[in-house]
Amino acid sequence: MAKVLESSPRKDGYRMPGEFEAHQGCWMIWPERTDNWRNEAKPAQKVFAEVAAAISQFEDVTMGVSGGQFCNARDMLPDRVRVVELSNNDSWVRDAGPTFVVDDRGGLRLIDWIFNAWGGLEGGLYSPWDQDELISQKIAELVGVDRYKAPLVLEGGSIHSDGEGTLITTEECLLNNNRNPKLSREEIEVFLGDYLSVEKIIWLPRGCYNDETDGHVDNLCCFIRPGVVALTWTDDRQDSQYQISSEALEVLSGAVDARGRKLDVYTIRQPKPIAISTEECAGVDRVEGTIPRQEGDRMAASYINFYIANGGIVAPLFDDSGDQPAMYKLQELFPDRRIVGIPAREILLGGGNIHCITQQQPKV
Amino acid sequence: MAKVLESSPRKDGYRMPGEFEAHQGCWMIWPERTDNWRNEAKPAQKVFAEVAAAISQFEDVTMGVSGGQFCNARDMLPDRVRVVELSNNDSWVRDAGPTFVVDDRGGLRLIDWIFNAWGGLEGGLYSPWDQDELISQKIAELVGVDRYKAPLVLEGGSIHSDGEGTLITTEECLLNNNRNPKLSREEIEVFLGDYLSVEKIIWLPRGCYNDETDGHVDNLCCFIRPGVVALTWTDDRQDSQYQISSEALEVLSGAVDARGRKLDVYTIRQPKPIAISTEECAGVDRVEGTIPRQEGDRMAASYINFYIANGGIVAPLFDDSGDQPAMYKLQELFPDRRIVGIPAREILLGGGNIHCITQQQPKV
Repeated sequence: MAKVLESSPRKDGYRMPGEFEAHQGCWMIWPERTDNWRNEAKPAQKVFAEVAAAISQFEDVTMGVSGGQFCNARDMLPDRVRVVELSNNDSWVRDAGPTFVVDDRGGLRLIDWIFNAWGGLEGGLYSPWDQDELISQKIAELVGVDRYKAPLVLEGGSIHSDGEGTLITTEECLLNNNRNPKLSREEIEVFLGDYLSVEKIIWLPRGCYNDETDGHVDNLCCFIRPGVVALTWTDDRQDSQYQISSEALEVLSGAVDARGRKLDVYTIRQPKPIAISTEECAGVDRVEGTIPRQEGDRMAASYINFYIANGGIVAPLFDDSGDQPAMYKLQELFPDRRIVGIPAREILLGGGNIHCITQQQPKV
Repeated sequence: MAKVLESSPRKDGYRMPGEFEAHQGCWMIWPERTDNWRNEAKPAQKVFAEVAAAISQFEDVTMGVSGGQFCNARDMLPDRVRVVELSNNDSWVRDAGPTFVVDDRGGLRLIDWIFNAWGGLEGGLYSPWDQDELISQKIAELVGVDRYKAPLVLEGGSIHSDGEGTLITTEECLLNNNRNPKLSREEIEVFLGDYLSVEKIIWLPRGCYNDETDGHVDNLCCFIRPGVVALTWTDDRQDSQYQISSEALEVLSGAVDARGRKLDVYTIRQPKPIAISTEECAGVDRVEGTIPRQEGDRMAASYINFYIANGGIVAPLFDDSGDQPAMYKLQELFPDRRIVGIPAREILLGGGNIHCITQQQPKV
């Protein structure tokens, strides 16, 4: 029912759709680890439940949850969100979970990447990550689809596909020594081509400033539709993000995609710098093997880290004067989708945002 | 997606189908507790895998498994058996799991009975049973169906339905003080009527000799089809089972079903008495709160404890001269199904048999 395939998606005619294509539903994982989520993860659980409720207005949502949190998650979530057991080390299904691929003849499969907690024993964020490593396999079983085991350390948040042969990623992450140190850029490109059926890879140099994922593209830049991208931005030349976004804009402006199109690049201004407070820091348990949170650390806040649902956009708010302009910009970019903003500081405190805690399953 | 319904199946036009009606698939739970399954449950796991493989020839099988046993179960089971996480206290899905009901217009729901480990703190087999209590709810989530929470302590193995308004059960179990002591026989009949949509309940006095479930009917007697039942039997008047089967035969012979039919009763001779060996007993961990296994204890072996699959029967074998006659008899009774016998002593050692470790999900 859920076999491991020895072939590759490209050989079998499977491709990674764009997130803006139609979804069957969305996968999420319930937060609970107290060394990452403050105050016994209760504030984060409340926001995850709001995100799940928002997305479930547009498409089916399945929440994976540890056995110990099943009743609590079931109680905090609306009936229409499905809750299933799914052991995990943390709740970043975008990164630890699968990438679904389709063949446009009704076929659905998934890619089970190697996961090493964003860097393994060289800068990874926690250890062990044994349960995260099983998430893609377990989702394959739950959905009843076959899977490809890709021989590549890769998190879903480090890639964006336009569904038409183009991928955007960052050098900071995919070429990092703590991911696939034995593979050259060219070898990684071959793997990405074989597994995602892409012909053109646009390499941005770096991800957002102080992003603990080693620069995931999904916090910096994403496809709105084929030929159109959005980029997080600041006009403040003193801000550490300025140089990063400027470099990315330069690459994007000069790029052509797999179909030979120049890209339209839209920018969305980031919120003002947000730092972890003393109180927030104090709510996190100290545990051996986990990178600690430090008060005053700047967090990598970006409006780009939103989820595209069927007919909707679920996007982070930061209690910042940039919130409304960002939502307006998203509405301009997605005129046919309803924009839902969710106050997301509690997700940001855990190290990511709405896109990082969601994973779309394409409709076939 | 999986709501709790305040109504009852009868009011909503739902009934419990006979096991011989068409199935969508079968649910099982992977054994692991070392205070019930000898030698770290490895011999039992091998037999559960054989049962799952046998049933999966006929219909889809989903194996629920604790997080800790996921990889081991996945490795021991064929690809075509789906493996999903499902925390549990033990592996008797027939008893701790749901009873599915259908409305014959494509509707599927389930009944979530109260489970108390076959007697709670008065003769129950283990404590706690908190994870078993959640199994029906979790299966409702996995399947995506609504459920009725029945205010009745009941295990699936204590009832057999003909799908046409008749139920067979035993007084020994359903009227036992350790199940629903505050309810009279008449009140229990009202609940069974409301939840299973049955009009006629045939009460057999006792279940099999030394059956630790307090006499579940599914080890003693079952429907072959409406109007036809099979009963475990012995001709040995000195055997403790003789009086039990004789009493049951007398009740069945005098009964009419909900449609006013007399029942055809077929008997299947039980194997010779089987006792737990010293070695088998020594392989079981002693744990506080669990009824211990004693060497020399007679086990309640019966060929009636088989599973009816789509086009097949999966039945226990006991390395006994009665095995082949029993399989021939089953072939006579089910001329259109293929009979698959599985050596089942390792399941019997845990306190039940193939019917007890399976639960059908009807096709709608």
